[in-house]
Amino acid sequence: MNPPLRWNDDARRVDLLDQTQLPVEETWLEIETPDRMAEAIRMLRVRGAPAIGIAAAYGLVLAVSRDPQSFDQAFRVLADSRPTAVNLRWALERMREVWRRRPDAASLLAEAINIHEEDLAQNLKIGAYGAELLGQGAKVVTHCNTGALATGGHGTALGVIRSAWSAGHLAQVYNTETRPWLQGARLTAWELHEEGIPAKLVADGAVAHLMTREKIDWVIVGADRIAANGDTANKIGTYALAVAAKLHGVKFMVAAPSGTFDLSCPSGQAIPIEERTPRELTEFRGEPVAPLGYDAFNPVFDVTPADLIDAIVCERGVISPVSEEAIRKLLG
Amino acid sequence: MNPPLRWNDDARRVDLLDQTQLPVEETWLEIETPDRMAEAIRMLRVRGAPAIGIAAAYGLVLAVSRDPQSFDQAFRVLADSRPTAVNLRWALERMREVWRRRPDAASLLAEAINIHEEDLAQNLKIGAYGAELLGQGAKVVTHCNTGALATGGHGTALGVIRSAWSAGHLAQVYNTETRPWLQGARLTAWELHEEGIPAKLVADGAVAHLMTREKIDWVIVGADRIAANGDTANKIGTYALAVAAKLHGVKFMVAAPSGTFDLSCPSGQAIPIEERTPRELTEFRGEPVAPLGYDAFNPVFDVTPADLIDAIVCERGVISPVSEEAIRKLLG
Repeated sequence: MNPPLRWNDDARRVDLLDQTQLPVEETWLEIETPDRMAEAIRMLRVRGAPAIGIAAAYGLVLAVSRDPQSFDQAFRVLADSRPTAVNLRWALERMREVWRRRPDAASLLAEAINIHEEDLAQNLKIGAYGAELLGQGAKVVTHCNTGALATGGHGTALGVIRSAWSAGHLAQVYNTETRPWLQGARLTAWELHEEGIPAKLVADGAVAHLMTREKIDWVIVGADRIAANGDTANKIGTYALAVAAKLHGVKFMVAAPSGTFDLSCPSGQAIPIEERTPRELTEFRGEPVAPLGYDAFNPVFDVTPADLIDAIVCERGVISPVSEEAIRKLLG
Repeated sequence: MNPPLRWNDDARRVDLLDQTQLPVEETWLEIETPDRMAEAIRMLRVRGAPAIGIAAAYGLVLAVSRDPQSFDQAFRVLADSRPTAVNLRWALERMREVWRRRPDAASLLAEAINIHEEDLAQNLKIGAYGAELLGQGAKVVTHCNTGALATGGHGTALGVIRSAWSAGHLAQVYNTETRPWLQGARLTAWELHEEGIPAKLVADGAVAHLMTREKIDWVIVGADRIAANGDTANKIGTYALAVAAKLHGVKFMVAAPSGTFDLSCPSGQAIPIEERTPRELTEFRGEPVAPLGYDAFNPVFDVTPADLIDAIVCERGVISPVSEEAIRKLLG
């Protein structure tokens, strides 16, 4: 699979796969200005926390390549493109640090490539550690999109699946639709299809039933934030999968870079859960699928308690069984 | 709410609310011939096992009202409209029995009205029994559509919710979207909205999380078939709700007429589960939402084992705790 986000050195631009057109069209955008990059981030043409951090870093390179005086303005435009995205801010700050020390385009490009390659390298390590946990002929379930589209490449949970497939360990993937945004149907299915990995789509609510019909070995998911005790916030629907996995003796793996741990957060209880507009459930692509003005409970994330998680895999290794002590030990 | 399916005696026709247009449009069809009724059944303009049985029965009345010789042909056309629907066949056979004994339109109409009114009467009893189980200020979750749209009126699981609301017992309903057909979003939400019952839509995969955030008292669902031991086949996603309910101490109610019991079926293991085309998951209203040709696991039903069910409510009373002995005793 071509990297969905890449620096094109000949053309001094970023080539970006427009995720809003997937899986129907593979539209490649030629991004030449920070304003266009900010637009791509704002419009979710690129999404996934690590991927938008990398995209924003390249956005600053595009700015100073054309006008070295435009750094600060480009910084603001990019920072405002998704105001609440932690990785975006983190990547931009890291770029500003370099710019202060060495205000030249080449240094800035080198740092953007560093950010990108570090993420990819982390994911390859996560993939290798995670794949080792899977036995021969493993059947797995994954949720949402945690693949190359969401990261600097390879992916986290989907990276584990990629690595396991390469190692010949994997027999079958079931990927959830992931309501309400269908990232599983639209994006994960696209990635699995591109890789030729045997995979089937499954409705979020059908996974528990699937576990009664077929021996599933692992549920493998990513994470948005992991508390000090191992409680994990991830895309809504994750907790329901963990509950079903526990009852059916299916193991549950969280795969995420170590930057996802928030040791200042003692447990999942302290993680705020964003709720979004009912319209994400009451409409589909602008068409109503429920009565006008109908209310909805529409949280973006849920929290899976540590005692439902068999292993947390990051680039530094595997935490299993999951405990605050084991987390602190691995993170140093 | 106007009955979504009713015999219009002045016009000698059936007035039918076209469910395929809900929740956006309330389109009433004036059905005057058995062919049009068969088309309405085939195109899911009327759906829900009891409702299509009733619709087909009226279809025979329409046939003989115009041409007494057309009974057999109308029978075949209607029987073929949804070949696997058990209630459809059952209602048509019952009508044929009457036609053999008394081949006149008035007797046939009387029998169709009987079938219709019996179903409504059963549902009102189910509603009353079920509502009694709910305490004051109950918060409930329901799945799929089991309302007036799916039955002769009032509904089964949604009938319990209606009765509880009338009795002043109910504080809040959460109704699932019900992937892949969205009967919850499109139909149950429409019925709850019409009744003014406080309700919120929730993604199927978000219900387990909801149970950690709010005290839910009951999950209330319908049934497609109930085995002799109480194992219950119902719309896909039901089992996942039952698993989550058990973990969170939420009670689980199945509401269905006694005709839903299949005592010849010893347990859920013996219930065949229909699987449907992957396209119900990979497309939405004809537009692709997953890669072309992507495979899917798309069962229509799942089985909830009796030990996850706190009460089965039918028109004869309440079975709780659920056991084969208690079922056989109530059914006589």
